[in-house]
Amino acid sequence: MPFTVAVNPNIIEMEYAVRGPIPRRAAELKKDGRQIIPCHIGNPQALGQHPITFARQVLSLLEVPSLIDRERTLDYVSDYILDIADTILTGMEGGVGPYTESRGPLFIREAIARFIDSRDGVTPTEGLPSNPDYIFLTDGASEAAKHIIELLIADSGDGIMVPIPQYPLYTATLSRLGGTVVGYYPDEENGWNLERSMLDESLRKARESGVNVKAIVVINPGNPTGAILDEQSGRDVMEFAGENGLVIIADEVYQENLYGNEFISFARLVGKEDVTLFSLHSTSKGFYGECGHRGGYFELRNPPEVEGTAIGFVDLLLKQASVSLCSNTMGQALTYLVVSPPREGSEPYEQFANERDGILNDLYEKAVMVRDSFPQMEGVESFGRIGALYLFPRLNKLPEGTTDFDYCMSLLEGTGLCTVNGSGFGQKEGTSHLRIAFLPPKELLEEVLPQWVAFHNRYVD
Amino acid sequence: MPFTVAVNPNIIEMEYAVRGPIPRRAAELKKDGRQIIPCHIGNPQALGQHPITFARQVLSLLEVPSLIDRERTLDYVSDYILDIADTILTGMEGGVGPYTESRGPLFIREAIARFIDSRDGVTPTEGLPSNPDYIFLTDGASEAAKHIIELLIADSGDGIMVPIPQYPLYTATLSRLGGTVVGYYPDEENGWNLERSMLDESLRKARESGVNVKAIVVINPGNPTGAILDEQSGRDVMEFAGENGLVIIADEVYQENLYGNEFISFARLVGKEDVTLFSLHSTSKGFYGECGHRGGYFELRNPPEVEGTAIGFVDLLLKQASVSLCSNTMGQALTYLVVSPPREGSEPYEQFANERDGILNDLYEKAVMVRDSFPQMEGVESFGRIGALYLFPRLNKLPEGTTDFDYCMSLLEGTGLCTVNGSGFGQKEGTSHLRIAFLPPKELLEEVLPQWVAFHNRYVD
Repeated sequence: MPFTVAVNPNIIEMEYAVRGPIPRRAAELKKDGRQIIPCHIGNPQALGQHPITFARQVLSLLEVPSLIDRERTLDYVSDYILDIADTILTGMEGGVGPYTESRGPLFIREAIARFIDSRDGVTPTEGLPSNPDYIFLTDGASEAAKHIIELLIADSGDGIMVPIPQYPLYTATLSRLGGTVVGYYPDEENGWNLERSMLDESLRKARESGVNVKAIVVINPGNPTGAILDEQSGRDVMEFAGENGLVIIADEVYQENLYGNEFISFARLVGKEDVTLFSLHSTSKGFYGECGHRGGYFELRNPPEVEGTAIGFVDLLLKQASVSLCSNTMGQALTYLVVSPPREGSEPYEQFANERDGILNDLYEKAVMVRDSFPQMEGVESFGRIGALYLFPRLNKLPEGTTDFDYCMSLLEGTGLCTVNGSGFGQKEGTSHLRIAFLPPKELLEEVLPQWVAFHNRYVD
Repeated sequence: MPFTVAVNPNIIEMEYAVRGPIPRRAAELKKDGRQIIPCHIGNPQALGQHPITFARQVLSLLEVPSLIDRERTLDYVSDYILDIADTILTGMEGGVGPYTESRGPLFIREAIARFIDSRDGVTPTEGLPSNPDYIFLTDGASEAAKHIIELLIADSGDGIMVPIPQYPLYTATLSRLGGTVVGYYPDEENGWNLERSMLDESLRKARESGVNVKAIVVINPGNPTGAILDEQSGRDVMEFAGENGLVIIADEVYQENLYGNEFISFARLVGKEDVTLFSLHSTSKGFYGECGHRGGYFELRNPPEVEGTAIGFVDLLLKQASVSLCSNTMGQALTYLVVSPPREGSEPYEQFANERDGILNDLYEKAVMVRDSFPQMEGVESFGRIGALYLFPRLNKLPEGTTDFDYCMSLLEGTGLCTVNGSGFGQKEGTSHLRIAFLPPKELLEEVLPQWVAFHNRYVD
């Protein structure tokens, strides 16, 4: 007879729909031989997206440094690539085998700082330069979010503002730590942009009910909505955080998934204002889609003072990071490559630029294909500029007594298309949605979209 | 003026000496140009240990699968290696780019199960076979320990028995989660083995003071002690855990660092008994020393029932793992290689066996060199069979008013040798120790050991 244990109740409560019942059912169907189209998660290479050649060639050399000399005689890869591999191996002192310092190697943090400054147009007179000592490399951005939230949540009276809908990592992490989720509601019909009054209202209500609100999470481009925030929304968040002493946690992992729109980072919006900002980035998204390598980082600006201790905020982050020793070195090296693309005119540049543009164009065209099928589905609408890897259509017409969970489960059973129900991300009461990652190859979309349309119109009638 | 936040007090409290003040001071000295010998952490490749060629060759191919076909024509690596790379790429469905399932790919978990069964001599009539569904791949063993402890600690009244001295990951994680550390004391002078009465006594005291003890951590081979437990100690733990309804958390990451001694796994000791066991393994130690790749796993046996919910224990572990999406794929692939060494007689076997034996012999000889210098130091004694990567000598004679922390700091300043003070791991009251990783190349040891001896005898007089 097995014995019984009481476990952490927060883990029993915690929900994580992106790997919840619908993907689990999909895995069962797949085992039984059904074709499954995994659109429940932003995992591009699982749906055939190719890795960026230049980055993989460098990574491959890092595992066997002696290949660098061999390749110099073989002319299979360019000297430019061999030199980058050399630079990384030198910077990593002993290659990819040892633990690195807890934050990650300094030369990579310096490269990230240069990337941020160049992206945001920081000059000696404009903006504030990024500080490599405030950059922490992590095993993907999820780990970054977990570290930050864990540091901020001092007790169960503490809460963090989270957009509804949101990526369930945030609610799951808060629920695991026993903190309070304070929802705020971007305006769907206004392209998922934000209203300052709605932020104030959400904070007021939370404070009235005794929650000590510490921070606000913003996801831009959005997940699950896929929408790109306008500049005014960003400014509103910045001012709102500044006036109310909140830390901004900016999840900006989709900053390359813009499809012609401009990205305005929170670092740029904060500029020289004294607002504490964490911004998160990852190697998993953009046009790299290197989810398996688990590379990522967070950057901190304007660390606050810490109440009741002489230990600095950055030192606490460092202590936290040190218990994990360091993030994985191949993910670190990939992060270096993502922030240091081939120089224009260099040997690998043309192939790199072609692959980058090819992937981004393809993603956009696939997003449009999916979105263009919505008008054929009764009562389906989608809002906002296309960004990230997702569409989050609203299902205005579901049969009495059914939910978006039921819908997504039936869609899976009926067509093999695996999506996630809107309720898995949270949504305004009385609305229903689903999130679909627009990743399947076009031929597959051409096949499955008409099936979805047919399924839908049958389902809602 | 920066604003002030209250942060998680557990993170302020948490201590982690392995990356604490002494290594931090070493980093400062290094910046100023001093030669530092980093013996404060088991990071072999930082001290010149070479990676295992066969594994790196396979990993290199995984990053650029097209190289496999090229190499078939070049004859640089054997077909055996190309075939393994092919097997991994096929098993990973889409290569190393996508997220894998949360637990890690099934073919790797199956390989781990075969490795465990073969190591423990499981046959159709002897022992219980390992279940691949109860194996979770993780970013190194530290992450595994954190997951397990986080699941078990339901509230601040919960505690876990931890050997004193211990690897500070355990106390740091418990302190972060607000759980209670229940220390038990292996018998130093009896080679750091365990007495059943001491376990009973520690549990009785904890229960008397109201602690709900959930589990017992055992580290074998030991860290920081480096000692290898005898079979009777293991049996005692197993019976003790069974009788008292405790989960065993067996940290067995040094299971290959035995230097001629036999490893008796807790899985083998548990056999068909109904005791819940987690065992942890890693790619960072053994003769691989691949710390930077952050590969590892935990294996569960005999999952308990969970109080107050219909959700199974394994499903809770799975939900927890899914919030991190998956561990890094290169670490996963390396884990596969660690548990699937080249077949005897295969092309890479000879080189593999030579490298393996060379590294292990070298480590043992270096351990003996370090240990043999202790009799030349006044009042320094070391106990137990040599295992893992560490020696943990006792400093019987420190000057009045000084601590082992002072000693290690002075040793660093005086000789560049970076070690960790015994108090960083916990130790029996009134004793003083230090932990040294026996990793520096022999020539460097020959240079620094006499300096240490001279420093020591000056310091204590």
